[in-house]
Amino acid sequence: MHLNVFTECSPSPQFVGMWRAPGDATGTGYRSLDYWAAIARRLEAACVDALFFADIHGTYDVYQGSWATAVRHAVQIPSIDPVPVVAAAAMATTDLGFAVTYSTTYHQPYECARLFSTLDHLTRGRIGWNIVTSYLRSATDNGLGEYLDHDLRYDRADEYMEVVRALWERSWDDGAVVRDVDGDVFTDPSRVRAIDHQGEWFTVRGPHQCEPSPQRTPVLYQAGASGRGMAFAARHAEVIFLTMADPQSGAETVGRLRRRVADAGRDPRSVRALQGTMVMVGADRADAKRKAAQYHELWSPEGQLAKWCGWMDIDLAAYPDDTPVDEVKNQGSQSFLGFLRGLSPERSWTIGDVRYLVSRPRRARRDAPMTLFGTAEEIADRMEQWLEVADVDGFNLIPCSPSDGLGDICDLLIPELQRRGMFRTAYRKGETLRQRYFGPDA
Amino acid sequence: MHLNVFTECSPSPQFVGMWRAPGDATGTGYRSLDYWAAIARRLEAACVDALFFADIHGTYDVYQGSWATAVRHAVQIPSIDPVPVVAAAAMATTDLGFAVTYSTTYHQPYECARLFSTLDHLTRGRIGWNIVTSYLRSATDNGLGEYLDHDLRYDRADEYMEVVRALWERSWDDGAVVRDVDGDVFTDPSRVRAIDHQGEWFTVRGPHQCEPSPQRTPVLYQAGASGRGMAFAARHAEVIFLTMADPQSGAETVGRLRRRVADAGRDPRSVRALQGTMVMVGADRADAKRKAAQYHELWSPEGQLAKWCGWMDIDLAAYPDDTPVDEVKNQGSQSFLGFLRGLSPERSWTIGDVRYLVSRPRRARRDAPMTLFGTAEEIADRMEQWLEVADVDGFNLIPCSPSDGLGDICDLLIPELQRRGMFRTAYRKGETLRQRYFGPDA
Repeated sequence: MHLNVFTECSPSPQFVGMWRAPGDATGTGYRSLDYWAAIARRLEAACVDALFFADIHGTYDVYQGSWATAVRHAVQIPSIDPVPVVAAAAMATTDLGFAVTYSTTYHQPYECARLFSTLDHLTRGRIGWNIVTSYLRSATDNGLGEYLDHDLRYDRADEYMEVVRALWERSWDDGAVVRDVDGDVFTDPSRVRAIDHQGEWFTVRGPHQCEPSPQRTPVLYQAGASGRGMAFAARHAEVIFLTMADPQSGAETVGRLRRRVADAGRDPRSVRALQGTMVMVGADRADAKRKAAQYHELWSPEGQLAKWCGWMDIDLAAYPDDTPVDEVKNQGSQSFLGFLRGLSPERSWTIGDVRYLVSRPRRARRDAPMTLFGTAEEIADRMEQWLEVADVDGFNLIPCSPSDGLGDICDLLIPELQRRGMFRTAYRKGETLRQRYFGPDA
Repeated sequence: MHLNVFTECSPSPQFVGMWRAPGDATGTGYRSLDYWAAIARRLEAACVDALFFADIHGTYDVYQGSWATAVRHAVQIPSIDPVPVVAAAAMATTDLGFAVTYSTTYHQPYECARLFSTLDHLTRGRIGWNIVTSYLRSATDNGLGEYLDHDLRYDRADEYMEVVRALWERSWDDGAVVRDVDGDVFTDPSRVRAIDHQGEWFTVRGPHQCEPSPQRTPVLYQAGASGRGMAFAARHAEVIFLTMADPQSGAETVGRLRRRVADAGRDPRSVRALQGTMVMVGADRADAKRKAAQYHELWSPEGQLAKWCGWMDIDLAAYPDDTPVDEVKNQGSQSFLGFLRGLSPERSWTIGDVRYLVSRPRRARRDAPMTLFGTAEEIADRMEQWLEVADVDGFNLIPCSPSDGLGDICDLLIPELQRRGMFRTAYRKGETLRQRYFGPDA
């Protein structure tokens, strides 16, 4: 089983309002090297596969046509660039992997290839790239590329992948760097070549600016929920981060994904599917309930709404609270139809026994299938069920709250998984992140 | 007096061929976090102001119309991205500053502003930005922006500075971040504003994605040798890195610079002028001579030529060795006229008693005025002369060789400067890099 832990370099990763949790260090710590070093060390002590950094460019400004709500509730603003953070966290650790979100829309492939080769060298092969095509119109308003339609963004991203893979995999031979002191040759130029890419979107001659790094290509992560996104993932991704409602419907999604991977000419087992899920672990049932109650008190529904409206590119403030979800869906951007489909009353987002709907939170009858909530034993049971029924290979865990919840994953949940023999108790020393996912020959 | 030490994340910073120096660790260490952490700690122990990272994008391919020579001699290829390295080096230190080269041609200003705010937060105010407009056609061949004429690049860079300064200085008020737990306000939106920049080159709405960092604006470094470059520097730069032939002609250059700064409406003392110079320190005269002889043996004239040809955008291989420099100059790119002027026989590059000319190395009669060469005492004398005669505020020291030479600066030269009372023996704790240059009120 593979475990990633999700974060962002922002005061309140994922759970809007949780910067207010008593003792939570993220609200000030997110911009401190010591904070990130401490988190990395803690995850490494728990043998977690990788720390996953989400990121955005721009600001959520769809809700009420303004970024005021996002700013007030620290909805990914302020947020700093995760790339330098990764290097510092790598210095604090020797085995923990890192996956960093980096957009094909805002950076040229030549730069992308150089950056990930740099990170792969510096981490000695512990880096993954979460490939995103980016969706905020607000980024375009800030001069970051033109706003492309969702499917077109993926067409462009396909070509982008061709370019970066050519730079990583074909530009420098193994052994091109000879360091021949007597012959005065650092690199044998006959073993380095241009890539001469000329496509619809990109012209890149090469050669790559970096010598081959331990993994050459970073482990390729992707979270593609839409049809076109899944086609992209089937073609390129090695680790796929899915957000599925329950193990039964998850089994369908994962099955479809593996078929798509096979259709793309790849071994369906060459892709690791991770269920992305929030986790709230209690020392016992009462503690879990106390944490859920705290979350209910602290979360910022309006901030959450600002985030969702940004995701969907729909201003929900324009709709009365009792508007049927289907009516809103028809206005949604193509990219979030998958997400919108998840917003029917049966599938909405629930923690403890509180269900959160798209426009306002309201009471509901039962636990959420999407959430890993309860004691370590209860959560471990649920995770076993996911692994068996849905055929996932692991989880991308979103701790709630960001600081204490991360501690609970390390101190309560992982020891339980280890007791059951479900999770490693030590790293294989010297392995790359790809070898961690796919074995020593990868 | 201010001392920076110059480096690049490449096997053989600045001195082509020096990766071959016995015991030099840069050829393999340049891609290792431990290597950079050790260098940073060593410079911090010596109370150096800042570690300065040069960088390029693309490959030197003008000489003989090929990048083969650059690849063979490791002329800034391979080279990794310095940005992640800075974060790791910051984690290994508490006081050392960092200046990192970042191009206005290859990155959008919104991204640039976010990255430097990130680095300023993570280093707690120890970051400087070496502003470059970039010059390699090869980068354009790799999809990095269009190739602009030198002066046009600076016009664009002027507008770029407007945008990033607005994001850093005017988008978030001091105290905008209130972290009001009870009122559920992380940031007061009324104290954050768009910048609404619409110019000839850029459209950027804002707001800035980061809360104000200790320095807000990184210390602005620039190396502008050309007329247009100096006009840009006079308008924007706080630390200017010059490469002048000797203290006498340096006095003219620095005087002209300060007058330009005054003409731009700024206090001429609000700019620190640093002489960029190679340093080769011997424990005694014989040791210095031994090092010069080693350098003479190890340097790669053809690699150096490949670099110069890239700088000048002229293929010198097309000219016979005895072509008068003036004849070549007329073919040179506008950007390097200043550099080319330095290539008359009287001003060429000399170490010990060997002078290196543009097309081939040859013997010469006397020491180079541009080089700090000899014992620590001799070099300190020379530095005193620079400070007095040329009115510079310090130096950007380029160690030769990259590893041992850096050690010699820390172990031999700086102690001598400290004995003379010319250089600090401790940092003022908690100061930002700007305060180090301009005092506690900066």
